[in-house]
Amino acid sequence: MEIKPIQDYYPDDVAHCYGCGRLNEHGHQIKSFWDGDETICYFTPKEYHTAIPGYVYGGLIASLIDCHGTGTAALAAYRNENREPGTLPPFRFVTASLQVDYLKPTPLGVELELRSKIIEIKGKKVISEISVFANGDITAKGKVVAVQMPESFNK
Amino acid sequence: MEIKPIQDYYPDDVAHCYGCGRLNEHGHQIKSFWDGDETICYFTPKEYHTAIPGYVYGGLIASLIDCHGTGTAALAAYRNENREPGTLPPFRFVTASLQVDYLKPTPLGVELELRSKIIEIKGKKVISEISVFANGDITAKGKVVAVQMPESFNK
Repeated sequence: MEIKPIQDYYPDDVAHCYGCGRLNEHGHQIKSFWDGDETICYFTPKEYHTAIPGYVYGGLIASLIDCHGTGTAALAAYRNENREPGTLPPFRFVTASLQVDYLKPTPLGVELELRSKIIEIKGKKVISEISVFANGDITAKGKVVAVQMPESFNK
Repeated sequence: MEIKPIQDYYPDDVAHCYGCGRLNEHGHQIKSFWDGDETICYFTPKEYHTAIPGYVYGGLIASLIDCHGTGTAALAAYRNENREPGTLPPFRFVTASLQVDYLKPTPLGVELELRSKIIEIKGKKVISEISVFANGDITAKGKVVAVQMPESFNK
């Protein structure tokens, strides 16, 4: 069975996010999957996603953490209801708050790995902690508070 | 006298940041200025910087807060030494940590205004709080801990 990323299950009308929307041709189109009890996402920054030359721009790291956090929230919400992604109703989360600690410069030119642990699932809220690795070395840590998208957002 | 943004004073070899580097042709090239005791920055997102259709992607908001925060830190550091930007040695800050609270959806299609207050200047660290406004309405709040770029970064 092919395993699809959670972003491939987002309904078409909410699949245009610059960070994670599969329908945004300009965007990053990140892909988030389960890996045991954690979730993972891989992304290779472009050469121009630079901060100081040779290192990744912090805003991109924040963006990846943000969107992997909302993807992780959706994955966790389905699993919490013992449902598979693709079953109805769909889960789609947005970010209420984002915290990023830049532990050391993140080198450009390598694939980054984001790993997330789910800290809390409560009502319409999912909190996750996300670590960013480059060459196996942790370079940034983040925390995302994601909430289910209000109905009014999409009307 | 023409007032230049702080980013125009960044030394060439550290002026390639995707968010604020004047030499990054792919990037946002944000510009930060004093406005009394606060700093300001204006930015109009592109149509593809979307989250849910019609609203700005949270990662961009985080990026703007991040880079306006490091620009604000440099402005504050010069003023703290009673020096004008452009005098030597130059100040260039990087982000140690970033916090963003998304208060409400930020509409696409309008110019955003970022306003920052300096909370603390201590040693090589500057902490600032930044509010994002769309149509005069506050949509996000952030806090940036910026630190002077270590020498080793640039070697």
